[in-house]
Amino acid sequence: MIRFDSDYIEGCIPEILEALAKTNSEQTVGYGEDPHCEHARELIRKAIGKEDADVHFLVGGTQANTTVIASVLRPHQGALCAETGHIACHETGALEAAGHKCLTLPTEDGTITAEQVEAAIQAHYSDESFEHIVQPGLVYISYPTESGTLYSRTQLKALYETCQKYDIPLFIDGARLGYGLCSRYSDLTMQDIASFSDIFYIGGTKVGALFGEAVVITNPKYKKDFRYHIKQRGGMLAKGRMLGIQFEELFTDDRYMKISRHAIAMAEKLTDGLRAKGVEFRYEAVTNQIFPVLSNAKIQELRDAGFSFHTWGAVDEDRTAVRFVTSFMTPEENIEALLARF
Amino acid sequence: MIRFDSDYIEGCIPEILEALAKTNSEQTVGYGEDPHCEHARELIRKAIGKEDADVHFLVGGTQANTTVIASVLRPHQGALCAETGHIACHETGALEAAGHKCLTLPTEDGTITAEQVEAAIQAHYSDESFEHIVQPGLVYISYPTESGTLYSRTQLKALYETCQKYDIPLFIDGARLGYGLCSRYSDLTMQDIASFSDIFYIGGTKVGALFGEAVVITNPKYKKDFRYHIKQRGGMLAKGRMLGIQFEELFTDDRYMKISRHAIAMAEKLTDGLRAKGVEFRYEAVTNQIFPVLSNAKIQELRDAGFSFHTWGAVDEDRTAVRFVTSFMTPEENIEALLARF
Amino acid sequence: MIRFDSDYIEGCIPEILEALAKTNSEQTVGYGEDPHCEHARELIRKAIGKEDADVHFLVGGTQANTTVIASVLRPHQGALCAETGHIACHETGALEAAGHKCLTLPTEDGTITAEQVEAAIQAHYSDESFEHIVQPGLVYISYPTESGTLYSRTQLKALYETCQKYDIPLFIDGARLGYGLCSRYSDLTMQDIASFSDIFYIGGTKVGALFGEAVVITNPKYKKDFRYHIKQRGGMLAKGRMLGIQFEELFTDDRYMKISRHAIAMAEKLTDGLRAKGVEFRYEAVTNQIFPVLSNAKIQELRDAGFSFHTWGAVDEDRTAVRFVTSFMTPEENIEALLARF
Amino acid sequence: MIRFDSDYIEGCIPEILEALAKTNSEQTVGYGEDPHCEHARELIRKAIGKEDADVHFLVGGTQANTTVIASVLRPHQGALCAETGHIACHETGALEAAGHKCLTLPTEDGTITAEQVEAAIQAHYSDESFEHIVQPGLVYISYPTESGTLYSRTQLKALYETCQKYDIPLFIDGARLGYGLCSRYSDLTMQDIASFSDIFYIGGTKVGALFGEAVVITNPKYKKDFRYHIKQRGGMLAKGRMLGIQFEELFTDDRYMKISRHAIAMAEKLTDGLRAKGVEFRYEAVTNQIFPVLSNAKIQELRDAGFSFHTWGAVDEDRTAVRFVTSFMTPEENIEALLARF
Repeated sequence: MIRFDSDYIEGCIPEILEALAKTNSEQTVGYGEDPHCEHARELIRKAIGKEDADVHFLVGGTQANTTVIASVLRPHQGALCAETGHIACHETGALEAAGHKCLTLPTEDGTITAEQVEAAIQAHYSDESFEHIVQPGLVYISYPTESGTLYSRTQLKALYETCQKYDIPLFIDGARLGYGLCSRYSDLTMQDIASFSDIFYIGGTKVGALFGEAVVITNPKYKKDFRYHIKQRGGMLAKGRMLGIQFEELFTDDRYMKISRHAIAMAEKLTDGLRAKGVEFRYEAVTNQIFPVLSNAKIQELRDAGFSFHTWGAVDEDRTAVRFVTSFMTPEENIEALLARF
Repeated sequence: MIRFDSDYIEGCIPEILEALAKTNSEQTVGYGEDPHCEHARELIRKAIGKEDADVHFLVGGTQANTTVIASVLRPHQGALCAETGHIACHETGALEAAGHKCLTLPTEDGTITAEQVEAAIQAHYSDESFEHIVQPGLVYISYPTESGTLYSRTQLKALYETCQKYDIPLFIDGARLGYGLCSRYSDLTMQDIASFSDIFYIGGTKVGALFGEAVVITNPKYKKDFRYHIKQRGGMLAKGRMLGIQFEELFTDDRYMKISRHAIAMAEKLTDGLRAKGVEFRYEAVTNQIFPVLSNAKIQELRDAGFSFHTWGAVDEDRTAVRFVTSFMTPEENIEALLARF
Repeated sequence: MIRFDSDYIEGCIPEILEALAKTNSEQTVGYGEDPHCEHARELIRKAIGKEDADVHFLVGGTQANTTVIASVLRPHQGALCAETGHIACHETGALEAAGHKCLTLPTEDGTITAEQVEAAIQAHYSDESFEHIVQPGLVYISYPTESGTLYSRTQLKALYETCQKYDIPLFIDGARLGYGLCSRYSDLTMQDIASFSDIFYIGGTKVGALFGEAVVITNPKYKKDFRYHIKQRGGMLAKGRMLGIQFEELFTDDRYMKISRHAIAMAEKLTDGLRAKGVEFRYEAVTNQIFPVLSNAKIQELRDAGFSFHTWGAVDEDRTAVRFVTSFMTPEENIEALLARF
Repeated sequence: MIRFDSDYIEGCIPEILEALAKTNSEQTVGYGEDPHCEHARELIRKAIGKEDADVHFLVGGTQANTTVIASVLRPHQGALCAETGHIACHETGALEAAGHKCLTLPTEDGTITAEQVEAAIQAHYSDESFEHIVQPGLVYISYPTESGTLYSRTQLKALYETCQKYDIPLFIDGARLGYGLCSRYSDLTMQDIASFSDIFYIGGTKVGALFGEAVVITNPKYKKDFRYHIKQRGGMLAKGRMLGIQFEELFTDDRYMKISRHAIAMAEKLTDGLRAKGVEFRYEAVTNQIFPVLSNAKIQELRDAGFSFHTWGAVDEDRTAVRFVTSFMTPEENIEALLARF
């Protein structure tokens, strides 16, 4: 079977396995206070150009989202986000279980705009019953989005400035950050992400690691006591160095970006190949997730031939959007095998 | 530096590293539904003698405790536990963050008794204001306890029968389960643990794995929808096979018990050596955690010599209990080096 | 100033004041276990035709909604409701603070249909990632709705049967129940409400009482331990008889329905009067809340003349829907004074 | 039957009933923004000597405690309190349901000391694993305590100064505030309570009102957005003026203190009478709750004679402490009838 289901279907980059083996008998303190975590923090601070950022390693994305947002909001506040945002759709209500509402905004392509945020905040405070309504307390976006789309530098800056205007933080879910930054359609750098947000995280699980997300807090207002929150939300790994070691390897020799570029190259090859055969797309294909529209017959044919992938909603009676995802490990022959079916 | 701080200071058994390397390029589905997880579940079901048990892999202990207890309790219920129980003391209020109170019972050595549980439940329902008081809804114990002590078969059976009498579940935190079962003082088997509880978990993080705990639900009443809870509490690893692969290795060739016996052998060697030199102990030394009472001068001397360990409360003006922990990886020469200081 | 803002702008029916005075020096036990509460429960059981229903008195609507829903749902479940539902819009995230998501369904007039509920449940279980999505665990509707509209007997029965099919409870928020039942457009009785739901409440705050809602649990599955939940959510009044006394008065001599009919008569008089003058309506005017569409100039003129009421969204550039609400106490001359302005 | 069960067994002062009747047909806005609430706030600000305090009216004590504490704490923080504190014992885990742990301190008589608070905070931060432990974020005390005892001015000032030293708020539960302030053993005034705390509440339910507590926030740091929290926790009464009207009456003509003095006079008469007959007391009898130690035979005799009261724990095989509570309405003949039995 050849899988295009997601970017978490394989293991990790080989350097991580080697490092785990090499360090296996070291004795270190736990809970993320070991030298590997400290070194990984230094590498990340350097990569993002913020020497004074706080960096914390968490296990996964849902955990990172809940921990960050719950650490920031007061009980009467909620998180503004796209109606397709991961926190709103695919975390089994983790944020609500932590007491907070997702204040969803409509979206066509997974992005939200500064104007929408501004309007939502204005609408809140101009409502006669505003105290009966959850107060916007944070803006959550994903880069790239759950639809594989991107924010431009101008769009992100506008969002950040709107947040600053109302003194609420902008939090960027970067579960697939590398795949966004390496897209030819992106005009953002890792440093921009750090500059135009208050908190963000660098996804490891989907970009080269076995697991792990590096949460970066750049706004000093949100730094205090964050480790308590990690522990409370179940994210403080006893053998915390497992996370440090992985991010050391990802942020050595520019590996995080290099492996992201591989995934993008594979997605582009697939996109170009499908386009050449006349396939249309549900969203513009800009990152490692592409959404071609296929006939239902073709979908069945591919599955019968051993290809695995998700559907993404019917387009009409005969056609359905599907999602093909490439990763840091996708073999080029898999792309070729898939294209050979068209 | 030679560390006796805890049993999570090193990596994992070499077989796990080998298996991770060997399986690295496999493509599998995520979220614990891959063949490795399925195989690991089979191995565990066999080891515990319960073919119909549900087995779930979570990342860490605090997460396992919170997820299990929150899945079982209704909002007005709390968890009966020892005042030294991990959920009451060292999880930054994770259970309270999920809405539930720890109903603590006094303990000298980390264990609680069936009589205490019975009395607590009786006291609850005989109180005129019982509806103003949190209702006992589950009993939580650790095996071995946070003080390194054990329950006998008789004690555990009595606890379980009391729970059955009141139709509330008994949940066993087995973060160090192997080290308990392999103690020469234990008269319990893995099958007993499964038979005399409703839910328990087999600790991997402290017993040979990089991370991971295997939650076992034997009582059908608590099986429904558990995977939703794992996802909500941030414990559903995208690359879930990382957990399956680790437990496959731990439960092949009786490795889980073999490596546990090593830790116990090292703890016994240390205990015997210290006793031979006249050292007294705070609790009876029965598992991989031992609590000798040392003079403050000796503590300082050991630290100056490069030994790392935790203190466990002053005994008198001149002496303090300390905790030495051995693990599946503790080198015998570390024991000898420490004993040479006495 | 003449207010049509809401139905909670005045005090209570005079019989309640008299009863409070008459019983003031009685000594009774607290927390709802006094003879007045017991008598009120009997009166309500008789009125709804369910001798074995559990009846509990809570202080207000948000509290009743949160307490009921949180007592029913498990952590991974949410409440299906109209996007305009009170729990989704105007309770400052009380349900989310109790850990649960509102699973909102689109609506034009405040109602939802059995088909929508069926489709939502089907969609949930047919999603490949269903365990990553909040599970529908209860259906919440308001009768009458927040838009002043009603369910027919056929519609309510269909909703209830769909809930039964999936074994999830139907909960009816009856904050304005009397005003719904007394509408000439209603084909439902109090007994129907009790028969076609698992839990509902009879609103007192907006229908004749100083405050108080009577929660009725007809499905035995949801009765257990409900008083603990009331206490935990802050709804167990120490001088609980205040609630019992009020519902005794409301349910004596069919008063609850009589006073509701007054509100409806006043709303109808206002509706007929406005219609006669050519005023259009945003929703069909069927209960004590009516939503005429007025020119912005007329709105200003009415306000300048001392009339107070809420706006309900712009219809076009020049016109806005407003809400006029009548109550059990609305003086007929207020209606006449308002009509005189048209 | 003559009841000494509690201070919430009767209705309210007659002035409140008169005011409710007089204002019944007034039309006012809801949710506590009406002129009666505003006037009551002014009266309270004057009585406490703090012109800039925020005053909010809530329905009951559990609700007030939960709302205040949840509005102040971050998720990883808990409330330091006596092990007998109401929040720890008799609120069905309302605080835990809001996500927070009660950090209980041992007490003999219901009070805690500045030294205990200081020690608890020091212990927290000096623990190697402090991030794994709930952080003290607020100190909760009751005045008078649940055991009917009092803090002296020196004790309260010391507690407040300790809180200030660590920048955490001191919150005083004043459910029976009047009965404390009017005790001959008290050296505190209402102004002192306001000066030596950050937030406190003035109990109405037990001191003359039908229901209601006035929460006073003197520290500006905790004022922001409090009304959202009231709404979220179910405490925002639609007909909010019911609370305003009651506190208007209680704070007119020094009535709150006058009626409190009546309860104290009745308790003193009862205490003196019992002492004269050789009865011993479990705690020193200083407020409206007294705790005599009676033989079990005497307890039975009193109950057979139609007296109702709570027991408060066995003292030895033959004797049990009981609780007699007087109130603002206790008739003097009830005291005499009880004394006649000794």
